[in-house]
Amino acid sequence: VVRHPFESIGFPALPPRPRKAGITSVIDKGAGPNEVNDVIAVAGQWIDVVKLGWGSARLTSPDALRDKLRHYREAGIRVCTGGTLCEIARAQGKVEPFLKAATDLGIDLIEVSNDVHPMTEDETLGLIEQVRRAGFAVWSEVGKKNPAEDAGLRIDERIAACRRELDAGAEKVILEGRESGTVGIDDRRGEPEEEMLDRLASDVGLANLVFEAPHKAQQVWLIRHFGPQVNLGDVPLAEALSLATLRTGLRSDTFADVHTAAAPLDREGPS
Amino acid sequence: VVRHPFESIGFPALPPRPRKAGITSVIDKGAGPNEVNDVIAVAGQWIDVVKLGWGSARLTSPDALRDKLRHYREAGIRVCTGGTLCEIARAQGKVEPFLKAATDLGIDLIEVSNDVHPMTEDETLGLIEQVRRAGFAVWSEVGKKNPAEDAGLRIDERIAACRRELDAGAEKVILEGRESGTVGIDDRRGEPEEEMLDRLASDVGLANLVFEAPHKAQQVWLIRHFGPQVNLGDVPLAEALSLATLRTGLRSDTFADVHTAAAPLDREGPS
Amino acid sequence: VVRHPFESIGFPALPPRPRKAGITSVIDKGAGPNEVNDVIAVAGQWIDVVKLGWGSARLTSPDALRDKLRHYREAGIRVCTGGTLCEIARAQGKVEPFLKAATDLGIDLIEVSNDVHPMTEDETLGLIEQVRRAGFAVWSEVGKKNPAEDAGLRIDERIAACRRELDAGAEKVILEGRESGTVGIDDRRGEPEEEMLDRLASDVGLANLVFEAPHKAQQVWLIRHFGPQVNLGDVPLAEALSLATLRTGLRSDTFADVHTAAAPLDREGPS
Repeated sequence: VVRHPFESIGFPALPPRPRKAGITSVIDKGAGPNEVNDVIAVAGQWIDVVKLGWGSARLTSPDALRDKLRHYREAGIRVCTGGTLCEIARAQGKVEPFLKAATDLGIDLIEVSNDVHPMTEDETLGLIEQVRRAGFAVWSEVGKKNPAEDAGLRIDERIAACRRELDAGAEKVILEGRESGTVGIDDRRGEPEEEMLDRLASDVGLANLVFEAPHKAQQVWLIRHFGPQVNLGDVPLAEALSLATLRTGLRSDTFADVHTAAAPLDREGPS
Repeated sequence: VVRHPFESIGFPALPPRPRKAGITSVIDKGAGPNEVNDVIAVAGQWIDVVKLGWGSARLTSPDALRDKLRHYREAGIRVCTGGTLCEIARAQGKVEPFLKAATDLGIDLIEVSNDVHPMTEDETLGLIEQVRRAGFAVWSEVGKKNPAEDAGLRIDERIAACRRELDAGAEKVILEGRESGTVGIDDRRGEPEEEMLDRLASDVGLANLVFEAPHKAQQVWLIRHFGPQVNLGDVPLAEALSLATLRTGLRSDTFADVHTAAAPLDREGPS
Repeated sequence: VVRHPFESIGFPALPPRPRKAGITSVIDKGAGPNEVNDVIAVAGQWIDVVKLGWGSARLTSPDALRDKLRHYREAGIRVCTGGTLCEIARAQGKVEPFLKAATDLGIDLIEVSNDVHPMTEDETLGLIEQVRRAGFAVWSEVGKKNPAEDAGLRIDERIAACRRELDAGAEKVILEGRESGTVGIDDRRGEPEEEMLDRLASDVGLANLVFEAPHKAQQVWLIRHFGPQVNLGDVPLAEALSLATLRTGLRSDTFADVHTAAAPLDREGPS
C-alpha cells in the first residue's frame, strides 16, 4: 500500500470496491483514452460504474471504444450502456444482437429505461428478465422524462414500480435527475420533493436506489440528507474526485455534516 | 473497414467527408495535444472543421500550435482561424503577413467577421476577395454581436448581405449564435426567430448557412426544425460526439424526429 | 526563442514570470497528468499559480498527485494547497504534519482561509505567521463564504483586515468570488460593488489583492475596470488561455479597452 502524503488528515473511510452503498456512477459522454486514463489515475478508486451516455457508444469509433473499455475494466470500474441504446435496439428488434455485442465488449451492466420507445410494465419486467438471463446486471429507471407525465405518478405507484422491477431482477433502480417528482433540485427547478424521496428510501431501501445527480447542488443536498452512503449517478466524469470530497467532508459544503456527527475528526482515512 | 461492435443498431447515415451538408464546426478554446487526440480518436469522422477560437492561436505556444494543427490535418479535419484574429490583423495593417502565416501553418479556411474592428460592406467584400485570392476558403459572418444593432437589421437586408458575401466568394455564411435576431435560442433569450430563420434558409439556401449553436438546446432546435443536414458551428470540442448522436437520432431529444419520418428504423448505418 | 507563427500580430506584452502583477491563479479540481501536460503545453507561460481545489489533494491517488506536482514545477508554475485542506488540518490538530507533507511535495504556497472551521482574527494572524515560519508563502482569504455574514463586513473593517494579514506576512490577500460584498458579479448576482472594490484597490494596493473570478463575465469586468495587471484566481484550468487573450485584448470582450488606450495597436508582443 502506497502511503498518502497527506495521510495525517483523517476522513470517514468509504468502503472499498465492490461497494454495496455509497456507489458513484459517472457518465462518459465521449471521453477519449487520455481523459479516461486521467480520471482513473486521479480518482479511479472512487468510481464504481461508468455509463456510456445514451447512444454515444454506437458512434464512438470501434478502436477508441475498445480502448476505453479495456482501461475501465483494468481499473476495476464496471461499464454500463446508456438506456437509450437499449431502447433503440428494442425499437429495431435487435435486443439479442445488442446483448451479444455487449457481452463481446466485456460490458456487464445494462440500463433499462422507458423513455424514447415506451413499454408497458409487463414489457419492462420481461426485458429486465431477458437481460438478466443473458448474464448482465440491470439498472432500471423508474419515472418519466416528461415532467408532466412524471408528476402524475403517485408516490405509492412509484414505490410499487420500484419493487416490481427489483423483484424482476434489477440490481438497482435509477431515479431520474430530470424528473420534477424525484430529485428535481437543480437551480432552475426549486426544492426537491423531500417527502417522496424519504418514502422511496424507507419503503424501497436506500441501498436499492441510484439518484441521478449531475449537478453539484443535487449531490450536496442528497449527501447532506441521506449521508455519504447514498448512491449517485450521472456524475460528470471530471467531477468524480469532487464528489468523493463531498462524501468525505473534504469540501466546505459538507464538512460540518460529515465531520461532526457520525465521523469523529480524528478518524483516519485510507491511503 | 473495421466493423462496429454495435453494427446491428441502424441509424440514418450521414454523408462521408468532405460533406456538402450536415457540417459540424467545433471550437477549440485552447485544447492541448492529448485532448485533440482524444476527440479525433472518438469522434474524428463526425467533425468537419475546427475553429481556433477568437485570437487564442496568437497566445498558444508555437510547438503546441503546430502539434495540434498536424493532428487535425492528419485526421482530415479542416482548421479555421477565429474571426477576431483576422480582424485584429486588419486593424494593425497586417493582413498579408497574417495570411502568409496561415498558409505556412497549413490552415485552409479563414473566418471573416465584422465585430471588434468594423468595416463597411465594401471593405468586407473586398477582404473576402483578398483572402480568396490568397488561396483560402472563407466563412463570413453576417450580423452584429451587439444585440441592439443586430435587431435593427431587417430580414431582407440580412438576406441581401448573405447573398453579396457568397457572391464575393465566401464558401459559407455564419449566423452568429449570440444574435437575438437569428439563433438566439439559448435558455436566457427565449424562442428563436423562426420566421427569419426560415426566410434565410429558403432565400439563401440551407447548405450555404452555418448556424452557431454552442448550446445543446440550440442544436436540438435546429436539427428538429431543419433536419440532420443543418450546418452547425461553435460546437464545444467535447460535444462533437453528442452532436453526432443528435443528428442521427441516437439521443432521446431527437429520436422520434429522426427515426420515424425520413429515416426508417431498420436502415443500417455505417460502421 | 522560438518565433511565433503569428508574430506579426502585436499585443501589449505581459511581464514574464515571476510576475508581480497580472498574476493568474488557476484551480485544479482533479485534473489528470494528460490534462496537466496539455494546459502546460498550450498556456503554461500564462499561468503563475495552480491551486489544488479545497481538500481534493487528500483523495488524489499518491502517484497521480506526485506526477502532477512534478509537471507543474518543471513548467515554472507554483502550486498552492486549497484553503479547506489547511482548515481541516487545523480542525484535527494536524497543522505541523500537513506543512511537513507540503514541504516534502515541493509545494511552496499555502492558502489560509477562514470558512469551515472559524478562527478569531488573532488565530488567523498566528496561523499566517506559523505557515510563514515553516518556509511557505501565504495567500490569505478575507471575507466570509456566507453572503449574509459577508455583507455585514464594513468597507473599513475589510480594509483593516487585509492590512493586518499582509502585515502578518501574507504575500497576497484573496477576495472570494462567492462573496456578494466583493466580486459578486456573476450572472445571478447582479452588479459588483464597485465602490468597495475601488476602496480596496486604493487602500490595500491592487498588486496585493487576488480577485477570485471563476466566470468569464467576472474576468472581463475586472480587466476592463482595473486593467490587465489585475490578479485573478479560481480560473478554471481549461480557461487559462482564454483569460490570457482577455488580458491582451485578443478577444472581443476587451479588444477596445486594451488596444485603444494604454496599448497602441502596433506594439509588438513577445513570441
